[in-house]
Amino acid sequence: MSGSTRKNEHKVVFKPEGKTVSIGPDGSVLEACQMAGIQIDAVCGGEGKCGRCKITPQGRFSATKSALLTEDEVKGGVTLACLTRAEGDLVVEVLPRSRLGRHQILTKSVEEVPRPLSPWVWKRLLDLPPATIADNIADLERLLRVLKDKTLSVPLETLRELPGAIRKGNWRVTVTGSELGQARELVRVEPGDSHGRLLGIAVDIGTTTIVVELVDLLTGDVLATASDYNRQISRGEDVIARMMHSEEKGVEELTSLARATINSCIESLLAKESMRSGVSLSADDIVAASVAGNTIMTHFFVGLSTGHVRLEPYVPVAHHLPEPRGGDVGMLMNPAGRVLLFPSRAGYVGGDVVADVLASGMHRSGKLSLLIDVGTNGEIVLGGKDWMVSCSCSAGPAFEGAEVSSGMRAMDGAIDRIRINDDLSTSYHVIGENAPMGICGSGLIDLVSEMFSHGIIDRKARIQEVGGEKTRPSDSGHEFVVERRQKLGKSASSDLVVTDADLQNLLRTKAAIYGACAVLLRKTGESLDDLSRINIAGGFGYHLDIERAITIGMFPDVPREKYGFIGNGALGGARLALLSRKRRKEALEIFERMTYLELSVDNEFYNEFSSSLFIPHTNLSQFPSAGKGRPSN
Amino acid sequence: MSGSTRKNEHKVVFKPEGKTVSIGPDGSVLEACQMAGIQIDAVCGGEGKCGRCKITPQGRFSATKSALLTEDEVKGGVTLACLTRAEGDLVVEVLPRSRLGRHQILTKSVEEVPRPLSPWVWKRLLDLPPATIADNIADLERLLRVLKDKTLSVPLETLRELPGAIRKGNWRVTVTGSELGQARELVRVEPGDSHGRLLGIAVDIGTTTIVVELVDLLTGDVLATASDYNRQISRGEDVIARMMHSEEKGVEELTSLARATINSCIESLLAKESMRSGVSLSADDIVAASVAGNTIMTHFFVGLSTGHVRLEPYVPVAHHLPEPRGGDVGMLMNPAGRVLLFPSRAGYVGGDVVADVLASGMHRSGKLSLLIDVGTNGEIVLGGKDWMVSCSCSAGPAFEGAEVSSGMRAMDGAIDRIRINDDLSTSYHVIGENAPMGICGSGLIDLVSEMFSHGIIDRKARIQEVGGEKTRPSDSGHEFVVERRQKLGKSASSDLVVTDADLQNLLRTKAAIYGACAVLLRKTGESLDDLSRINIAGGFGYHLDIERAITIGMFPDVPREKYGFIGNGALGGARLALLSRKRRKEALEIFERMTYLELSVDNEFYNEFSSSLFIPHTNLSQFPSAGKGRPSN
Repeated sequence: MSGSTRKNEHKVVFKPEGKTVSIGPDGSVLEACQMAGIQIDAVCGGEGKCGRCKITPQGRFSATKSALLTEDEVKGGVTLACLTRAEGDLVVEVLPRSRLGRHQILTKSVEEVPRPLSPWVWKRLLDLPPATIADNIADLERLLRVLKDKTLSVPLETLRELPGAIRKGNWRVTVTGSELGQARELVRVEPGDSHGRLLGIAVDIGTTTIVVELVDLLTGDVLATASDYNRQISRGEDVIARMMHSEEKGVEELTSLARATINSCIESLLAKESMRSGVSLSADDIVAASVAGNTIMTHFFVGLSTGHVRLEPYVPVAHHLPEPRGGDVGMLMNPAGRVLLFPSRAGYVGGDVVADVLASGMHRSGKLSLLIDVGTNGEIVLGGKDWMVSCSCSAGPAFEGAEVSSGMRAMDGAIDRIRINDDLSTSYHVIGENAPMGICGSGLIDLVSEMFSHGIIDRKARIQEVGGEKTRPSDSGHEFVVERRQKLGKSASSDLVVTDADLQNLLRTKAAIYGACAVLLRKTGESLDDLSRINIAGGFGYHLDIERAITIGMFPDVPREKYGFIGNGALGGARLALLSRKRRKEALEIFERMTYLELSVDNEFYNEFSSSLFIPHTNLSQFPSAGKGRPSN
Repeated sequence: MSGSTRKNEHKVVFKPEGKTVSIGPDGSVLEACQMAGIQIDAVCGGEGKCGRCKITPQGRFSATKSALLTEDEVKGGVTLACLTRAEGDLVVEVLPRSRLGRHQILTKSVEEVPRPLSPWVWKRLLDLPPATIADNIADLERLLRVLKDKTLSVPLETLRELPGAIRKGNWRVTVTGSELGQARELVRVEPGDSHGRLLGIAVDIGTTTIVVELVDLLTGDVLATASDYNRQISRGEDVIARMMHSEEKGVEELTSLARATINSCIESLLAKESMRSGVSLSADDIVAASVAGNTIMTHFFVGLSTGHVRLEPYVPVAHHLPEPRGGDVGMLMNPAGRVLLFPSRAGYVGGDVVADVLASGMHRSGKLSLLIDVGTNGEIVLGGKDWMVSCSCSAGPAFEGAEVSSGMRAMDGAIDRIRINDDLSTSYHVIGENAPMGICGSGLIDLVSEMFSHGIIDRKARIQEVGGEKTRPSDSGHEFVVERRQKLGKSASSDLVVTDADLQNLLRTKAAIYGACAVLLRKTGESLDDLSRINIAGGFGYHLDIERAITIGMFPDVPREKYGFIGNGALGGARLALLSRKRRKEALEIFERMTYLELSVDNEFYNEFSSSLFIPHTNLSQFPSAGKGRPSN
């Protein structure tokens, strides 16, 4: 066909960006999206299973039919990008809801600056006596003689800079030392005096988003923060899909996608801080990194296979990983600088949870605390300074927008707060102040709570006939109309509803979290009354209405002042361990001390889970105040 | 021109091999030689300065004139390969003397096997309890639990093999540990039982030749030995030329040439030993390496610049280098395995000298020993278990075949032993039993000694008129005819002679060595009588006639039984440090304890050198027995 850029290649132009890429006959439009840098939702990794990557292509193409498209959509020319192949040049529009828009990435975390600051990297300004024929020992030994430390080792990367730096600085140099674990070494030599600048990065590798902070290690200040979607999303939205992808295609692709995301964040941090400070910073200036992620993300980041984590008995390659150099893991930083990787306790209790605990400070408290990190998996930690026990429950991705027909992530167009009025009409807040496209986790919790309070659902979360047009029969029982199609964005093809099936998914999710908390308390012989604090961590913590989460029986019914948000604990914990050797040591102690309870090992979790499949719970005595508090809006 | 393989490319066919390569218009025939793998002598690195790379090209070419070619050579169609450019297809013959033929590489060294054997790598067979849901700790922590050692670190490379190896071996694995310096780590995990095989390599990186031994670390046996020219020769014959090359073009090329030479040796070792043992060995089976070389070779090997070693005050980048992994230095071995690099004491007293001392055992002796390693630089060590002092003298390359008109390396066609008969005719032995092409170091020492004994030269090494046709005037004083052209190889264009100028170069070389020995003795207040042993190390040690070296005043005149040859001490020392942690520790102690005396710091060396510019010496009392012994032949 004429117009093709090469034989068998076709141009694909994306609207409205106008970005153009060429794909071959075997390439899908999904791949073209990725080539063009168009962030498209493709939960299943391009296997035609999630039905998310909706487009309207124009031109000559072939598209495999999908049961995941409605009749209206098919009539409107909608296809799935992963199942669409160009047969000529195409103009393609990605449906708004299929775009990964500006996401509400939680970059907020503990603001504590650990005092005294004691980062595990340091700088020293050295004036060396110039070499003479009577004193011609090597550059390195001359430097160590002035440092009065012969035990520091020096990697080859650093040695290569040494002679040039010494002479460029006219025998005055600034050295950077790193003391992490057993490695005591010089990681950098700069000509002249630069001991006033010492930079590190804290990294949270989340399954969905990656957040990177540029940290001034001399003051403890966060100089800049950058975040982005984890580019691995194009290979599957959740960890299970990505593990399966890696088993089929190898882990390398996921490794490089995570690193590319991190590095693009670092690039933007360096640019931001160079602009702000007027000093041109380079990647070499970043001499330390602290990285927290769940077990799977950490394995992918360093290139380890996760084949045995996915299936019973869920065995990772390693809990406590070595501290690689930046160069070993392809990080945009000084290649000799060390990367601290938070150790994971189990396949599903990762370094992010260890970092959460560190950020919460619960490991230093003499009183009993609970930590809940809600994501696709709920991770729960119970304990204090004497003991800690952790577990993970497969909560399902309902609160992250999957498995719920109107669910979506906390991003532009998502309802994050909602109230049902007495006439059963709804009032809500939409992220980005646009027309609503769906409901994110905090909005869904509000919705279930409000539906229950207004008698729209019963204790088993089944939709009731309430009269009027708000509830109606649907393919799967009944549905509740949250908003009419007319009020939605113009791409909406139907009303925004929540169905009986959706509610059962949400019920299972909340039951899994509460059930896991209950098992931990029972196994350790503690009770709700013993809890002095409940720390809520993770992406949707800050948006969450605690009162309503208690109303639906997801969180324990304890005095509300005991609840606290630690925000992005993975990021905060990573930063603490970057700024303080003491905190870094504490992270290792948390890892050593925290035991892991495998919930699937007996029936206890299943029993607690089943008891929690009611609103708020089978045993109402566990929720004496539920629903009595006044929901805030 | 027709016949060219590509536009502007010309074919060059080498005779007699028939090897054909294509070169562009900017490429010299020297580069074509290197592409074709023809080992050609190019001392100056292809700059048209040494006049060694003689060829007879046929076809269309342009060749820059060189004063380094004789009239006869020019008439005979001889050109220098580095100055010859193809303008059409060529047939090229490399002159026999310009070929780097089979070299007498000294691979013999100490045969001591240190007992008890205690290599710093070890293997253990482990039976792991299979993972279950009730015991699902990670693979690494499971393995360390059985090893009962939580302090071993594990590099990422090894972790990547771990889950596969464990399951392939059905929970039985063989682990390889490495304990070198502060690094205690697991470098390999193999499925099943392979604890009966533990291999390492010892490497001597010489300026001219590289020797590699494959060593069985469980028995101490040398399984196979391989050697080759250091491929860096094409970038300059001596270290000075190569340093200048690296300053101009960067060190990377020299680094990769050294590594390529080593790796081709390792390939041949693996092939040999696989054949012999019937077990297919791979590079991964080599889990430890021990490398000794002079300071420059060691710097090049790891990619460090030598710009400050070449010029006063002769400062290396580092004496004691870190122990890199095989993968860090591009060695054909297990990438996680460690490489022990012998530390150097000074710019011109390198790791090879430390290894010499280790091989000689002089550092353990309560008596006084001297060690002499003769190469382009002479390195001398004096001392014993309480103290050691070292120095280096620029002996010049006269004994390695340069700066002497008929000089050549100890290779096919070189006279290595020579006697002058009473009628002043010569009897000699030629390496490879061919017609002679030149004289190598041991032959030159014989020759000077014999000429002196027969009164052909005086004490200042000036050629005397002895009548007949054996001596005659030349451009530079006189020359002595060693052999007539007719008896030489057919490519010879003139008689084989030694000139007054040659003899002055040889005299300076022997004076430098003896002068350096004398300075060390004087500075330490010791005398010749105190010496209990003199160790001769280095490439030409085994070929050398000690009696004649004493006759010319090169080596001290002490009872001959005090002399011993340690052969390739760099290789022997490297092997000892591979097989024994005790010997490895001793190598570090030698490095720590051995002081370095910079001869150029005062006039003492110059005075001793000047006194030695006589045969045997100005002060004859230092050579009471010189010439009295019966030269062996």
